[in-house]
Amino acid sequence: MALLRSYVSGSWHTAADEGVPLHDAATGEEVARISSAGVDFAAALEYGRRVGGPALRELTFHQRAALLKALASHLREHREELYALSARTGATLGDSKFDIDGGIGVLFSYGSKGKRELPNDTVYVEGNVEPLSRGGTFVAQHIATPLRGVAVQINAFNFPVWGPLEKFAPAFLAGVPSLVKPASSTAYLTARLVELIVESGILPEGSLQFVAGSVGDLLDHVTAQDLVSFTGSASTAQKLRTHPAIVRNAVRFNAEADSLNCSILGPDAVRGTTEFDLFVKQLTTEMTVKAGQKCTAIRRAFVPAELLDDVAAAAAERLAKVTVGNPASEGVRMGALASLEQREEVRRSLKALLDAGSVVFGDPEKVDVVDADAERGAFISPVLLKADPERSEPHEVEAFGPVSTLMPYTSTEQVVDFAARGGGSLAGSVVSADKEFVREVVLGAAPFHGRLLVLDAEDAKESTGHGSPMPQLVHGGPGRAGGGEEMGGIRGVLHHMQRTAVQGSPAVLSAVTGRWVAGAPRAEGVHPFRKSLAELKIGDSVVAGPRTVTQEDVDHFAEFTGDTFYAHTDPEAAAANPLFGGIVAHGYLVVSFAAGLFVSPEPGPVLANYGLENLRFLTPVKVGDSLTVTLTAKQITPRIDQEYGEVRWDADVTNAEGESVAKYDVLTLVSKEQP
Amino acid sequence: MALLRSYVSGSWHTAADEGVPLHDAATGEEVARISSAGVDFAAALEYGRRVGGPALRELTFHQRAALLKALASHLREHREELYALSARTGATLGDSKFDIDGGIGVLFSYGSKGKRELPNDTVYVEGNVEPLSRGGTFVAQHIATPLRGVAVQINAFNFPVWGPLEKFAPAFLAGVPSLVKPASSTAYLTARLVELIVESGILPEGSLQFVAGSVGDLLDHVTAQDLVSFTGSASTAQKLRTHPAIVRNAVRFNAEADSLNCSILGPDAVRGTTEFDLFVKQLTTEMTVKAGQKCTAIRRAFVPAELLDDVAAAAAERLAKVTVGNPASEGVRMGALASLEQREEVRRSLKALLDAGSVVFGDPEKVDVVDADAERGAFISPVLLKADPERSEPHEVEAFGPVSTLMPYTSTEQVVDFAARGGGSLAGSVVSADKEFVREVVLGAAPFHGRLLVLDAEDAKESTGHGSPMPQLVHGGPGRAGGGEEMGGIRGVLHHMQRTAVQGSPAVLSAVTGRWVAGAPRAEGVHPFRKSLAELKIGDSVVAGPRTVTQEDVDHFAEFTGDTFYAHTDPEAAAANPLFGGIVAHGYLVVSFAAGLFVSPEPGPVLANYGLENLRFLTPVKVGDSLTVTLTAKQITPRIDQEYGEVRWDADVTNAEGESVAKYDVLTLVSKEQP
Repeated sequence: MALLRSYVSGSWHTAADEGVPLHDAATGEEVARISSAGVDFAAALEYGRRVGGPALRELTFHQRAALLKALASHLREHREELYALSARTGATLGDSKFDIDGGIGVLFSYGSKGKRELPNDTVYVEGNVEPLSRGGTFVAQHIATPLRGVAVQINAFNFPVWGPLEKFAPAFLAGVPSLVKPASSTAYLTARLVELIVESGILPEGSLQFVAGSVGDLLDHVTAQDLVSFTGSASTAQKLRTHPAIVRNAVRFNAEADSLNCSILGPDAVRGTTEFDLFVKQLTTEMTVKAGQKCTAIRRAFVPAELLDDVAAAAAERLAKVTVGNPASEGVRMGALASLEQREEVRRSLKALLDAGSVVFGDPEKVDVVDADAERGAFISPVLLKADPERSEPHEVEAFGPVSTLMPYTSTEQVVDFAARGGGSLAGSVVSADKEFVREVVLGAAPFHGRLLVLDAEDAKESTGHGSPMPQLVHGGPGRAGGGEEMGGIRGVLHHMQRTAVQGSPAVLSAVTGRWVAGAPRAEGVHPFRKSLAELKIGDSVVAGPRTVTQEDVDHFAEFTGDTFYAHTDPEAAAANPLFGGIVAHGYLVVSFAAGLFVSPEPGPVLANYGLENLRFLTPVKVGDSLTVTLTAKQITPRIDQEYGEVRWDADVTNAEGESVAKYDVLTLVSKEQP
Repeated sequence: MALLRSYVSGSWHTAADEGVPLHDAATGEEVARISSAGVDFAAALEYGRRVGGPALRELTFHQRAALLKALASHLREHREELYALSARTGATLGDSKFDIDGGIGVLFSYGSKGKRELPNDTVYVEGNVEPLSRGGTFVAQHIATPLRGVAVQINAFNFPVWGPLEKFAPAFLAGVPSLVKPASSTAYLTARLVELIVESGILPEGSLQFVAGSVGDLLDHVTAQDLVSFTGSASTAQKLRTHPAIVRNAVRFNAEADSLNCSILGPDAVRGTTEFDLFVKQLTTEMTVKAGQKCTAIRRAFVPAELLDDVAAAAAERLAKVTVGNPASEGVRMGALASLEQREEVRRSLKALLDAGSVVFGDPEKVDVVDADAERGAFISPVLLKADPERSEPHEVEAFGPVSTLMPYTSTEQVVDFAARGGGSLAGSVVSADKEFVREVVLGAAPFHGRLLVLDAEDAKESTGHGSPMPQLVHGGPGRAGGGEEMGGIRGVLHHMQRTAVQGSPAVLSAVTGRWVAGAPRAEGVHPFRKSLAELKIGDSVVAGPRTVTQEDVDHFAEFTGDTFYAHTDPEAAAANPLFGGIVAHGYLVVSFAAGLFVSPEPGPVLANYGLENLRFLTPVKVGDSLTVTLTAKQITPRIDQEYGEVRWDADVTNAEGESVAKYDVLTLVSKEQP
């Protein structure tokens, strides 16, 4: 591997100069060179907007989701190659899996969420129809549409695969092209990842661009429709946040920066309890995985004052067993930092921390290594400190390596306050079996955290751990952590879309959203259950009834089902019920009769009723009431991988006075073609 | 009225100096003086955090909502006094109602939304429980908790009542105290509003503070837990956005700034159509209401090229009938701008616009006025321009007064592009009866807009109009409009809260959220239908059954209800169904039998089943299957104004193999006490 290439404006670009060398973290050897000299950044952004965006917006959410899944499968086939390259960043095989399998996992997760939670459509309809008028002719609906720009994604050195993929997946699913810019020191791994992606031909052209090297004047060209998301240091985040073009255009800017994450041991978790062991194990694991170079790693470990010595001793014992060295060698538990510069940085931060505390384990300047040269490679020992939590340094100085600080606390209120002194964190954890303590800490610490993990004997076996952001969950934190939010399932997709309130008549909203809105025209004619998915249109409708509910019906239903609730069976008691004032028909009788009215029984395209939603009984049904049901096709969702799709029907059951007695959505599966 | 006072740190503060004069917009007389000299801003923020925040966080969402409603009712009683003061800002009675009744309406809306859409609790639970493990012992739930700081709200001069209230209501409902700072020129009206609020004693102390005059060093003291929201000019927005404390602490910053909103006439809407008239009427109304000083007013009116002359003539005719003058005088349709400075500003902008176009109606330097002095009062004529849409000025220069520019277009694609040239807008409108055109324009313009109104003959009578932000709908727009988002119903509440993903065992999540999570412990014993709301606890449960489903049951249910769908009645046809492969029991039979199993029929605290949600039929039920149902109390919501509350039950119907055949939530009303 020589000079890393950028992938911009539809082709591979080789820099106009020789670039600067990137070094193997463990050996110091040159791995590659990097430069973005000669990249036309304005053109790349414009290419994303003109080529990538339109191509993506032609696809439905389900089609984009399927591509993410295909991409994930493709990359999974090439994991070994990526692991090998990852070792050069200082990562052990375990670390590499965390990064690489983790990144592939994000793609799978968004592939699956996109299919399950988004429509097979290009417009996202958010929330309920909002009534804005008495007469019902003026209503509103929020929709989300993809921004028309490019998602500029500036990543940190510590996760060269997961970092780009966790930003790319939600952008892609939203329909927004990405421009990925990794941190230089480990960019050769991202470069190979992007080569694999481009070679696969799976993604529409223009949906992913890649810059190896500096961003040059890229940010001068961002517009209000572009986004910038950044992971890295707080100082760079501040520089980007105040970039003139970002400020002038109110560009959506997301930062994930420094974070002094805490882990809190409960007072119940004394030595000998499962939770004590879990706390110590998690602390030392978080210190050593990726040599502590995780934005989510535990930097501050709060323990009850009386347990501090026990925890210190147990943690030191575990840390003493951690073998440091060549990440590719067997038996090595912790590899190198990503670069010698990082080691200098960590040592500098350690000096500041040592002003406020003392060493429990490890020597910042000395470490025994296996199969490697401790000075040429960026090796450092795990260092556990203890400190006075009233000092500011432990809450403010992040040593981005295998470094944590133990601190004592004496009350729940106090530890919640200490947690908050981090000024906003990505992740925190509470290790305790005392649910009252847990509740108090979680609710107290929540305003300062993007994610909180509660670890105990019950979830320990299946827990993914303090340091693992999950694609389903928000990743990001307030304040010092950057104030951003990534992933979080579909939330991360919506970050890339513009939310717009659309006001109009029900007919207009139906036309805009492709979903039937109550009050919009309905079309009667052929029974809609006789229509295939291809023939069915929203608004297709059947009105059936009336059927009169008799005393015998109610009595019989009570006896048949066993639902002899007094309001259906005991006239005197029912008369005393403040809501009914007399015998009412069962709600389940009403919906069962309604189904009997609207069904078209012969075999046809409708395959099954798979559910029902938002059922509300609005008016009590009394004996003698006659019921009419109006069933209207509301939303039609073909499945891209099946011969059928989903149809959501609006059901409105009314009485003789035209009042709605029950409203609900009926969910069915319908064949794409006539059987 | 003399020197306006600030309400900070629990008391009224009179400035240490004489202040600067504020003038009646129509007469030029001095109305009041303003100064914040001597206000200790750091102390005010700290007071909000230490006194207001904790007081608010002790209340549930429903309690806060009830206070908003009480406050709205109180202010409604004092409308007349506010109208009179409002006239001095240049506002006609209609304008005043728009501002004052509009603001009170926001309080009512949030009062009602808070009760209907938020829990009667202090923690907001967002979205579904996220499964994170196969075994189900490790799951997650997003929660939202109020930020622990103060919402600093910096408002514009044009809506001295609505502006503060639309920012205050969602903050208050979230549990975050507000510090309100109005623009000086009309601050005397806001000051009186705040006096009325403080005098009422309705709000907890510390939940609302008020600064008359400049913000001094206020922003230097904001932390990551505070928020800053601003409405005003783009240049001030940029200054605030880059304020060192805001940047350093990643403070949530929301801006609502300049916006060159467009209105688009459809090609179908030729002279003589309802939509043509609606377009012209709306355009001239938007120009003259509040003398055009609305962030949402129409600045750019796009009409089909062939209709330009017709529209120009019709609009000029309407504008000629607009009486300008003393806003308190009868017959006056348009009052004054808020100040002479504003008039200078508008005239300056008009000069720039005239470089790119020409006048259709009005003279920027001259206007006939009624009951007033056209020079001493800040009067100006409505001015309608026409311009070449290929010029940049009409898309970039906002004349914040009764000024709009007509521009021609020749294709749908072109007008969507023109709309986008505004660089991001708060509101747009499309006036057309052609649904295809409307759909294309709305979906094309949506990424550039926070709100889009479609006006046609159908919704015109009930429409609230282009320029009216609604509390239910998002207000804000991308890019030039500031990139912010306010209101939008509960969305605006969540802007003031921190979203946190909480991971743990189901039991832990139940303890934290107060809602039972599947997999958490259940408690059997006394049938939970026998327990009052006060006695019932989440997790209280009944397991009932089994009941075997017989062939007779299915046949009988089909006959009784009329639901003779072939999958329940025709063995041969059912066998051909790809999902069932044979006769299945009706889904409604399954849920009816389940109700018969779990019900406790005698009169007791359970009053009614008012609905059902999220029903999914998961496994077909065949003849001979035996059903067991487990019903568990999931969420308990006492109503603050009733003798009962809502209980949501988790229902899980299983077969003999323990597979779930149906899952759903049952919604009931339950008395607070035993009857």
